[in-house]
Amino acid sequence: MESLKKKILTDGAIANDNVIKVDSFLNHQIDIDLLNEIGKEFKSRFLNERVDKILTIEASGIAIAVITAQYFNVPVVFAKKTESKNLDKETYESIVHSYTRNMTYTIKVSKKYINKGENILIIDDFLANGKAAEGLVDIVNQAGANLIGVGVVIEKGFQEGGKNIRKKGIRLESLAIINKVEDGKIIFK
Amino acid sequence: MESLKKKILTDGAIANDNVIKVDSFLNHQIDIDLLNEIGKEFKSRFLNERVDKILTIEASGIAIAVITAQYFNVPVVFAKKTESKNLDKETYESIVHSYTRNMTYTIKVSKKYINKGENILIIDDFLANGKAAEGLVDIVNQAGANLIGVGVVIEKGFQEGGKNIRKKGIRLESLAIINKVEDGKIIFK
Repeated sequence: MESLKKKILTDGAIANDNVIKVDSFLNHQIDIDLLNEIGKEFKSRFLNERVDKILTIEASGIAIAVITAQYFNVPVVFAKKTESKNLDKETYESIVHSYTRNMTYTIKVSKKYINKGENILIIDDFLANGKAAEGLVDIVNQAGANLIGVGVVIEKGFQEGGKNIRKKGIRLESLAIINKVEDGKIIFK
Repeated sequence: MESLKKKILTDGAIANDNVIKVDSFLNHQIDIDLLNEIGKEFKSRFLNERVDKILTIEASGIAIAVITAQYFNVPVVFAKKTESKNLDKETYESIVHSYTRNMTYTIKVSKKYINKGENILIIDDFLANGKAAEGLVDIVNQAGANLIGVGVVIEKGFQEGGKNIRKKGIRLESLAIINKVEDGKIIFK
């Protein structure tokens, strides 16, 4: 997706440790026009698929999922990372390790909201080690739902997540794949 | 907002301890059509105001804020509740106590994304004790931005948040105000 790559190059930033920062338009401040372009792009990539529901994970996945859901005309469900008094007792759960935060947490989805036989599209902002996406895939499988595919805005191609997900035969659509960050410059695939 | 009240009555649930659950359409599974109605309603309530940016807080505020932002044609900024490696060092911070979770946490917004003189509309899903909203107001004030008002989807009228915010002279627009929950029944204002 060329407009996204351009945005990453012009408005993205590289922190000292070669971390890619897109918090000016994607995961802290959010550019709604860009999000709509992203939503349309996901729709065009999964145009011939029947999607019943979009599944994402809090927090930054939510923005992308809800805007994208408008193009599919389906509801969104987001997995919870944090304990919530209001969450149902009956949940599908998966354990996810975050390398960024160096911690392990349990993601949960109420059993009411992912049903057997439903066609689920997983949407998230970033794919790096892919542990969050794998946790969502695990929940789709536990529910006996059909996984249509995984759509991510930015894939870090130099980490293992994308490879691992594709190896499982899962359709992965990444709107921008970053191959490496070198001397403060982003190189796309 | 009549369609919202109807939705709360038909699809909302009351947990044993008189907790109002709207996780089937607002804060776990998300009804995108309803969210668009909510976004339009916020736009009509703040029609004559110049809004430069919408400020919300992760996680469930994000869905409402981004859909609403489409009607104002402005970006969204969401305050972070959790530590993030990617967050700037220079942040506006406010301490928020959550009665629901019985914990105190620090909310943070990068100083880059709320600027002096900007017109800010705060949007969130629930207003109960109002501590999260007050934390967001505090951040707007720290930044020297102009607070246009606060828009919430559901106000729990039997808790103090709404009263406290209105007492400060802040314009508060609540799309549904619940006066009480009695014998498993929701009574609107």
